[in-house]
Amino acid sequence: MRIDLGRMQRRLAALTTPALGGTPAGGMNRLALTDTDRAARDLFVSWLREEGLTPRVDDLGNIYGRRAGTDPALPPILVGSHLDTVPGGGRFDGILGIVAALEVAAALREFGVATRHPLDVVNWTNEEGARFTPAMLASGGVVGVFARDWIDGRTDRDGLTFGAELTRIGYRGDESARPGPIAASLELHIEQGPILEASGETVGIVEGVVGIRWCRVTVRGQSAHAGPTPMAERRDALVAAARMVVAARDLARRRGDHNATVGQLTPEPGVINVIPPLVTFSLDLRGRDDAALDGLLVGELRALFDAIAAEERVTYDLAVEWAVPPTPFAAAIRDRAEALCAARGYRARRLWAGAGHDSQYLARIAPAAMLFVPTIGGLSHCETEDAPWPAIAEATDIFLTLAMELARG
Amino acid sequence: MRIDLGRMQRRLAALTTPALGGTPAGGMNRLALTDTDRAARDLFVSWLREEGLTPRVDDLGNIYGRRAGTDPALPPILVGSHLDTVPGGGRFDGILGIVAALEVAAALREFGVATRHPLDVVNWTNEEGARFTPAMLASGGVVGVFARDWIDGRTDRDGLTFGAELTRIGYRGDESARPGPIAASLELHIEQGPILEASGETVGIVEGVVGIRWCRVTVRGQSAHAGPTPMAERRDALVAAARMVVAARDLARRRGDHNATVGQLTPEPGVINVIPPLVTFSLDLRGRDDAALDGLLVGELRALFDAIAAEERVTYDLAVEWAVPPTPFAAAIRDRAEALCAARGYRARRLWAGAGHDSQYLARIAPAAMLFVPTIGGLSHCETEDAPWPAIAEATDIFLTLAMELARG
Repeated sequence: MRIDLGRMQRRLAALTTPALGGTPAGGMNRLALTDTDRAARDLFVSWLREEGLTPRVDDLGNIYGRRAGTDPALPPILVGSHLDTVPGGGRFDGILGIVAALEVAAALREFGVATRHPLDVVNWTNEEGARFTPAMLASGGVVGVFARDWIDGRTDRDGLTFGAELTRIGYRGDESARPGPIAASLELHIEQGPILEASGETVGIVEGVVGIRWCRVTVRGQSAHAGPTPMAERRDALVAAARMVVAARDLARRRGDHNATVGQLTPEPGVINVIPPLVTFSLDLRGRDDAALDGLLVGELRALFDAIAAEERVTYDLAVEWAVPPTPFAAAIRDRAEALCAARGYRARRLWAGAGHDSQYLARIAPAAMLFVPTIGGLSHCETEDAPWPAIAEATDIFLTLAMELARG
Repeated sequence: MRIDLGRMQRRLAALTTPALGGTPAGGMNRLALTDTDRAARDLFVSWLREEGLTPRVDDLGNIYGRRAGTDPALPPILVGSHLDTVPGGGRFDGILGIVAALEVAAALREFGVATRHPLDVVNWTNEEGARFTPAMLASGGVVGVFARDWIDGRTDRDGLTFGAELTRIGYRGDESARPGPIAASLELHIEQGPILEASGETVGIVEGVVGIRWCRVTVRGQSAHAGPTPMAERRDALVAAARMVVAARDLARRRGDHNATVGQLTPEPGVINVIPPLVTFSLDLRGRDDAALDGLLVGELRALFDAIAAEERVTYDLAVEWAVPPTPFAAAIRDRAEALCAARGYRARRLWAGAGHDSQYLARIAPAAMLFVPTIGGLSHCETEDAPWPAIAEATDIFLTLAMELARG
């Protein structure tokens, strides 16, 4: 039994054409529940049918393609990822995992493999959180982290809701289509970082997903005219916020085991000759240890911000808007993946995932695991995102075997 | 001959009602060439007529109210300021100067004072530059700094042009209405800084206006995912820009004789979990000495930015979009103002203006001078902007005498 790399390449290309959100620079703009997302879903459903799978859509727009097992009483094995992208994102993040999941179904079909468990090939809605926050909204709904009504009410920048947009694109299914109990969940994904490439490994066996805190920081100073206000008398919210941005970065770099990122920052009123009285910025904090993450946030970072606010004579507020603890993946599946790589001579490495993934929520209700493939230059969430196909072939080969073994029970 | 402080207060109140852009918090939103600007202009023109002045409007929307002199061959004395405000601005910036200029005409009328020179009470269009950049657009047009077609083509954030908006509000006059040769120009204004208040002086005699550079800085790094990208491998344009914001502030504070302000800063794409690859920010630099200003900009600041860019592995570009040299005001008028204050027992102080004013352009073609009144808390370009009426009374008294003496020739 083997995978068909050419078919994977053709499907990845077909899912990233301009009509489906592909950009002239080779990247992707396919926000969740847009017309391009609908077009990608339509193509995905056509392939589910092509592979002999039975499509169904749940009330959160998650799409499943069922391959029946021989024992109707057993829960399914899930293989899948997501079709949505960030704005100006790449062609591999999520999409490669969809193509690999389809390849599992294709290989089982071609080689006539029967399994005791059924297999579901899945596309999860709004994984990125770039249109509707937070990320992993619909897998979070399936595992019970978020209520259906709350998900439906999430709004994008234009005030459009998740629920209305899901209905608009025709992918509102029924709650009965949710998978219910799950035997195991597998996801293949690009690493989105530089570790595998730097060490020359082709298969990343993911230990787990780091914990995340999304914070909103509001800094308040005093508006005044840029010309006549002496430097020493200012209460400049932007200077204070800029110092906080640098302090968060410096702290994370000094610690070495955390990431801190500011992606959004807005000074008000945004006039060239007005000292900004108000700045809001986002803060994305990640780490492998939940207690250390809270210690960083509540302790060290607040102490730094307090000192900056006092020096700059501003006030600030830091609100934690989203918190996910670190998630270790199923040890048995990780060990089996490592043994398979060793047996086949593939260079593998255990590593932590820095980004959130739907698998992180699925791990709450079932044994879950992820495999990573290297990312060229470590660059993701950008139009130049790329991954080496020889490594994809080896990782998908392991992915197929793991899925088959789990489905056979 | 004396001023009527009550009339000034009533006129200032009438020019700052909600219908004319007054805000619930006591501030002003009256961007140039909006409907509220038109309403304020209509009221101003009605008062010109009330004071027996002959209104005329030039091709840039500047409004003049002419009081005839006894010698038709002599050029006019100009007294005036501006009715437009920044968004979320105050009730005194510009508006007080309009009220004081009207008060000069009112006092001359009431006390039957004949003057050899004619007097023009003036409202200058778009002084703030908050809607159409740069600031002082229409006085710059009158003195020949900007061409009429270029001014007409300036666009606001919504793509509307100066020319179309001027015509829309009905204040497109004729080029022949421009004042031509000017004998002298006077403007009364709030200081917009803390110096007079701190020293307890009521009349500020303005030495001149500092030089200004408006710059646009573009920082380019590398987009990547906030989660899996190690801190040490990032090329974060926002961290680099934040360091530049702080470096510019620190440099200006260290030097003591310059101001540096960042009012606008925009990270792209502005997504919470994407390391920003692109940041643009404004930089407003001011100083009393033109060579020192260029030295600061070309020398010290670029050296600091170069070092930050190298450390953060980003590139940047700094473009100077607007440059005005420092402008000293007419020494004879300044000296006369100082002598008048001494004779009347008013506490006066010479000081530099940190903000740009139309008088700065008028100084290119005529003897020009400005008087300042204290600003409570030094706060301007904000809704709490305020000035003490006893000081306004003393400054306007000097202003009236200077205007009368200049008009008498």
